[in-house]
Amino acid sequence: MQTVDQTRDWLLSRARVVADIEQVPLLDAAGRVLARELVSPLNVPPHDNSAMDGYAVRAADAANVLPVSQRIPAGTLPQALAAASAARIFTGAVIPPQADAVVMQEQAELQADGGVRFTAPVTAGQNIRRRGEDIAVGQVVLACGQRLRDADLGVAAAIGQPQLAVYRRLKVAVFFTGDELVEPGEAAPAGKIYNSNRYWLVPALRQLGCEVIDLGIIADRLDATRAALRDAAARADVVMTCGGVSVGEEDHVKAAVEAEGELQLWKIAIKPGKPLASGRIGDADFIGLPGNPVSGYVTFVVLVRDFLRARMGETVQGWPQPRLLPAAFDWLKPDQKREEFLRVRIVEQDGVQQLQRFANQGSGVLTSCAWADGLVRLQPGQSVQPGDLLPVYPL
Amino acid sequence: MQTVDQTRDWLLSRARVVADIEQVPLLDAAGRVLARELVSPLNVPPHDNSAMDGYAVRAADAANVLPVSQRIPAGTLPQALAAASAARIFTGAVIPPQADAVVMQEQAELQADGGVRFTAPVTAGQNIRRRGEDIAVGQVVLACGQRLRDADLGVAAAIGQPQLAVYRRLKVAVFFTGDELVEPGEAAPAGKIYNSNRYWLVPALRQLGCEVIDLGIIADRLDATRAALRDAAARADVVMTCGGVSVGEEDHVKAAVEAEGELQLWKIAIKPGKPLASGRIGDADFIGLPGNPVSGYVTFVVLVRDFLRARMGETVQGWPQPRLLPAAFDWLKPDQKREEFLRVRIVEQDGVQQLQRFANQGSGVLTSCAWADGLVRLQPGQSVQPGDLLPVYPL
Repeated sequence: MQTVDQTRDWLLSRARVVADIEQVPLLDAAGRVLARELVSPLNVPPHDNSAMDGYAVRAADAANVLPVSQRIPAGTLPQALAAASAARIFTGAVIPPQADAVVMQEQAELQADGGVRFTAPVTAGQNIRRRGEDIAVGQVVLACGQRLRDADLGVAAAIGQPQLAVYRRLKVAVFFTGDELVEPGEAAPAGKIYNSNRYWLVPALRQLGCEVIDLGIIADRLDATRAALRDAAARADVVMTCGGVSVGEEDHVKAAVEAEGELQLWKIAIKPGKPLASGRIGDADFIGLPGNPVSGYVTFVVLVRDFLRARMGETVQGWPQPRLLPAAFDWLKPDQKREEFLRVRIVEQDGVQQLQRFANQGSGVLTSCAWADGLVRLQPGQSVQPGDLLPVYPL
Repeated sequence: MQTVDQTRDWLLSRARVVADIEQVPLLDAAGRVLARELVSPLNVPPHDNSAMDGYAVRAADAANVLPVSQRIPAGTLPQALAAASAARIFTGAVIPPQADAVVMQEQAELQADGGVRFTAPVTAGQNIRRRGEDIAVGQVVLACGQRLRDADLGVAAAIGQPQLAVYRRLKVAVFFTGDELVEPGEAAPAGKIYNSNRYWLVPALRQLGCEVIDLGIIADRLDATRAALRDAAARADVVMTCGGVSVGEEDHVKAAVEAEGELQLWKIAIKPGKPLASGRIGDADFIGLPGNPVSGYVTFVVLVRDFLRARMGETVQGWPQPRLLPAAFDWLKPDQKREEFLRVRIVEQDGVQQLQRFANQGSGVLTSCAWADGLVRLQPGQSVQPGDLLPVYPL
């Protein structure tokens, strides 16, 4: 058996970043991975501007009642401030040349003659946002390999970018084998079960930004499996299957991958889970998840998801940071050889956040994954008493 | 000024759940909000089945060498186990009547005569997954009001559901006002700035599952603003604008909403932020965010996002649980009247997770939101010393 960390490292070290880069309009770039660092061509804000609605003045004049010499809404270009005057100004508007402070309107009193008097001391520089304070010309505002979130797109807009260079979507072809499988909505005669793997895997891949080529259930024959693999490998960057990677299993994925390409079959010290296949078919990567839905789900989250992220160009730095939280449960019969990933939920009890585990951690219980919001990682042989601090990873 | 909590409570208490429910195919239901609880019509697994590849036996017979009387791949219906025999069985296959245990193949030795001998003691019930162990007939597997995640869809598939009843997408119309705004890609003459609000707000709404009606920049005239509001309200459940809700601002959103519907204009004890408008235009809700991008962003995350979630049918229970982490910074001049929401990042230093704050917390610095992965919530007047435990909310 190889360890979870060895397997992650092996996969990550072989994640070839998708080569194609495309320009997409800013509003279509959410969730995509930036393919070139973004350097600002301009200052944000472009000019010194007012942080308040109020009056732009020279601080040295501000003890006097001042006539209002101009009005500067946001979006207009001001005249230089006339000597011994104030300019009515609004939030975001450009500070007029010769002014050096803004007085907020709550500290200004309009006089009967139209002049303005200030009710608080005025300091040079007050309420002025400086040119380039947010972003300076030449500053790197977004890094290559970062997955673009909403505020990132706001920043790209602020420097005038109508589109961004992102890696093209990773194409992932999936199919499912097993003569026991039927699709939801079909009748399930005795002995058959519904194909649940398709319905968590396809959304999980889409959530990552993959373009999913969903080939559905493939008949459990060697020729059909080989044909599906060839078809999938010709159309996708990564081919994924669920099932058929355990010793002695009743289907043809192993033999078909070996016939069409190359295969590594691993036993990994992970529970739930254990078998995982990796390989190549033509230029496509092959990943064979275990067919048991809980094993497949945990294996995907722990081992495969970050491989796909790296494969699509995202910067992946080892494990995500776990949270450390106290257990509100015990776990007295740990697996002695495999790391265990318990399905847990973070709950607040008496004002303290704690971990509850799903009662039945059996590998046949997919409801444990739906119920959970995190996985606790236990070392081989690690038992748990209530109060133990445990590392939990979000799902 | 009213408090952040008062404002959240006010908005949440007025969030009318969208009335229309639609059936969507399972693979299109990711991220949608379930509109009816899902009750299982069947047991999962439907039959007692094998947790291993191996041999199904009667435990009482297992001390003997047993002939192999049948072979049971997954997906087939077994015969009753012949007396004093074993059945070759595979993971997931139905346990034959009369068998009461499965011996894993690693503990079985095939004999020259085709019989099988077991190398470890066998206990009745071992390696059998019980009918209904994951899901029992009549069990509620998914709750009304939950946002559907990948594993939820796997569970729905496991009970044979080809589609789910979800609330229809919330329609949110957005527009942006301010004569200083130009769109990215256009020239920005002196005095103009790029419309960044559109580019974080539209993706944030889509991320929530909203159908966004994006009306872009509307000319800063009362008639144009009124026309845009009428158009938006006729097509959407919620109308959102950025800007024009501060006292003394230079545009017409306030007057236009008052002319077309009703408006509450609030000063909220929040920094960044302060002004927020809420109201109704016809049957549509109106939300007016502050025009400053950082204020708008924080106001959206803290006050508006959960309103929209509740409005689209999702169960929202107060604030999300914050994490408590030590500050690796100081904050010595807190606002005395407003709660502050500092943009922070969780970093690991010497093996301990800590909070860094973005150096410039000014409300003109949108890069602080892109850099951050959380908001620290400070009470009015609360200063921070390194090491203080602070509540942080993910963005």
